[in-house]
Amino acid sequence: MISRRRMLCSLAAAPLAAGSALRARQSAAAAKPPRVDASALRRRIETLSTFGRPPGGTFADGVSRTAYSDADVAGRRYVVDLMKAAGLRPRIDPAGNIFGWRDGTAADSKPILFGSHIDSVPNGGNFDGDLGSLGALGALEALAASGIRTRHPLEMVVWAHEESFAFGRGLGCSRIAAGDVTPADMDEVWNGMRRADAIRRIGGNPDRILDARRGKGSHHGYVELHIEQGGTLERAGVPIGVVEGIVAIDRYDVTITGVANHAGTTPIPERHDAMLAAAHLTIAVRDAATRTPGRQVATVGRIEVTPNSPNVIPGLVRLTVELRDLSTQTLAAMADDIRARARAIEESTKTTIAFKRLADASPAVATPEVQRAIERAASSLSFQSMRLPSGAGHDAQMMARLGPMGMIFVPSVGGVSHSPKELTSWSDCANGADVLLRTVLELDAV
Amino acid sequence: MISRRRMLCSLAAAPLAAGSALRARQSAAAAKPPRVDASALRRRIETLSTFGRPPGGTFADGVSRTAYSDADVAGRRYVVDLMKAAGLRPRIDPAGNIFGWRDGTAADSKPILFGSHIDSVPNGGNFDGDLGSLGALGALEALAASGIRTRHPLEMVVWAHEESFAFGRGLGCSRIAAGDVTPADMDEVWNGMRRADAIRRIGGNPDRILDARRGKGSHHGYVELHIEQGGTLERAGVPIGVVEGIVAIDRYDVTITGVANHAGTTPIPERHDAMLAAAHLTIAVRDAATRTPGRQVATVGRIEVTPNSPNVIPGLVRLTVELRDLSTQTLAAMADDIRARARAIEESTKTTIAFKRLADASPAVATPEVQRAIERAASSLSFQSMRLPSGAGHDAQMMARLGPMGMIFVPSVGGVSHSPKELTSWSDCANGADVLLRTVLELDAV
Repeated sequence: MISRRRMLCSLAAAPLAAGSALRARQSAAAAKPPRVDASALRRRIETLSTFGRPPGGTFADGVSRTAYSDADVAGRRYVVDLMKAAGLRPRIDPAGNIFGWRDGTAADSKPILFGSHIDSVPNGGNFDGDLGSLGALGALEALAASGIRTRHPLEMVVWAHEESFAFGRGLGCSRIAAGDVTPADMDEVWNGMRRADAIRRIGGNPDRILDARRGKGSHHGYVELHIEQGGTLERAGVPIGVVEGIVAIDRYDVTITGVANHAGTTPIPERHDAMLAAAHLTIAVRDAATRTPGRQVATVGRIEVTPNSPNVIPGLVRLTVELRDLSTQTLAAMADDIRARARAIEESTKTTIAFKRLADASPAVATPEVQRAIERAASSLSFQSMRLPSGAGHDAQMMARLGPMGMIFVPSVGGVSHSPKELTSWSDCANGADVLLRTVLELDAV
Repeated sequence: MISRRRMLCSLAAAPLAAGSALRARQSAAAAKPPRVDASALRRRIETLSTFGRPPGGTFADGVSRTAYSDADVAGRRYVVDLMKAAGLRPRIDPAGNIFGWRDGTAADSKPILFGSHIDSVPNGGNFDGDLGSLGALGALEALAASGIRTRHPLEMVVWAHEESFAFGRGLGCSRIAAGDVTPADMDEVWNGMRRADAIRRIGGNPDRILDARRGKGSHHGYVELHIEQGGTLERAGVPIGVVEGIVAIDRYDVTITGVANHAGTTPIPERHDAMLAAAHLTIAVRDAATRTPGRQVATVGRIEVTPNSPNVIPGLVRLTVELRDLSTQTLAAMADDIRARARAIEESTKTTIAFKRLADASPAVATPEVQRAIERAASSLSFQSMRLPSGAGHDAQMMARLGPMGMIFVPSVGGVSHSPKELTSWSDCANGADVLLRTVLELDAV
């Protein structure tokens, strides 16, 4: 097995040569550069949206195709049938992930892996995951139609259970493929369902779950096309985003302890108001994100007040603080800033503020060579592109553990996601799929 | 029926004459001024605390003697038995309020009414209500023991259902006595119990509920001894508080509408964070109370965040704002201040903030003549006294609708109330009961 370091070197070796090698091979294979069938892509996204659509609803009503649900099972069957029709010999790994395969020309060459997922959050949208999965299929079909052979085998994937909804650990089945699994995980119960039974429902084999692990360096590179889920591309008027990496998340449970007392009989100077402290802390969290330039974000998303009665001064508040940035140094600086402000808030509100750090997710930096391959691909299609971080988690961050990784973003209208209102224009969908196809060819050339 | 205006005039008429008339009658009746039996008072408060005490607990574990509970029924029976033994001919009105009676010497003279309640909040303390009820009994016994006759009949009362716990309207049975009741109120259901059945449980007669109404001007004056429930007297080192009035309450339901969005993918400048707006508003509420000198208070006690998830920017926050002061002008100024700040917060956080005013409770000003009678009573016993508002609601505010009203406060250790930690020293209890007794005599003399 080739080490990741060595792969990175090989990718970094010939960026200038790559473009010309690719052009040479393309002109040999077909005069017209391959394009993904945009109308088929749209039709398939629309058809997939019917699996999990609210009863009596339309495309605009979004989808609830949560992992392991009947809708998920039906949607997966639809995609597997499309893959069969495309001659991709689909297989399901023990974790339930769906893979398709197209041989390469070079012997013993490692596959280029690309795809996304098709499960959704409850009451979610029709593009998150679906575009990257069906776009991968479209790219393979376009290559077949234009007769282009790649040196590397091409492997498409539809990851199972991407959305952190069911079970406890998040990013379910690509995490398993990345090797983060033990047989005991199969005994986990969520909502009355054992994980083993859930995985069996979608055609996996929990008894052989360790065989779902993919080795480090077992693929040449991983690329994922996805909607941005934020509003950066739309505001910039740029059709293609080149993901610099998936941000790290630092999350804290904060407990603020004051003294619950009568809201009528307790004079202001005698109060130890945990809600007032929570208010100051919430503002401190925002300030920590905006004090320095950058794209770091900080959020107080959850708050619980005790006793939570109009006529009682809150004695206890629990809230969450979530910090995200590509740089762990920036995260640490934000956390330090918030803790320092908390000391002053304790003083001024006569409360105590305790921080409990929850498991943090490390950043997954996109491989520079894959970023450049995406930029070349966009440029070859005359699409403007820009680099941006991904504030959301993706299967790609799991694949970054195994080898080179990159992601292509397309604009989300209004930056809305995880909602029936999630929307990406059909032309942006097609452009993204074309960039995915060209990126695969760029990676094949290095 | 004599109008309240006329009563106030008669009370106001002879404040200087009152003291001398009282001294003349006392010296005729008994050489030694009457005192409440402090050890009996303590013993009875301790015994009453056993009705509703947590299983296996002690006095320090407080009491749950909520209105209409078995503990309430048992506690009321204990007090009725004490009243019978004192010859007070206890009667229960159709609302469940317990009254005792001692004749006066003047024909057709209106009674002086005094007492409190014995129901508690869940997990409450042993002094809130109990002291004023058993103190009233002790005062009547002391008068009987010393052979003092009053011109006015004396009527003690143990109001039913004072604590705003059961049912919807608060201050249950003194509100009924004040006339604020319709037969339809008896059909109200709370926690599976009809109000009619609840009132029947404690010996009332819901079919005749309108007969529980006491007419305006039907008593000469009302006095209530109560623990302060705040820390003002303790901090000042003053044993007797003369209540200036029971504050008005202005309460708002505030709805803050932003846009729920992904906490990772939504850049800070694009956020419409309802929780951040709620934080600024909570600070504005505190500032509104502290901007001008005075004893006004303002509290954000309850807050509900939607969707309340660590990784979603809150799109909706509902919170309560509660303002209290004796002056409705001060309340209006605070509310105006908060609304003005809310406009600026809407702007800076890109949210909307809507205020819904809930039914406000008017202030109940203690009758100046009754305040002066309490001050004379304290002074005659060489107790320092100070005037202060009551931030909490009391049965006295209902009686203020019918005639002259006053309240005597004694110190609460640490200002704690509605808690097992509620505590008033036994000497402060005895002092309060003695001041109640003397106040009744002062009122009898005017």
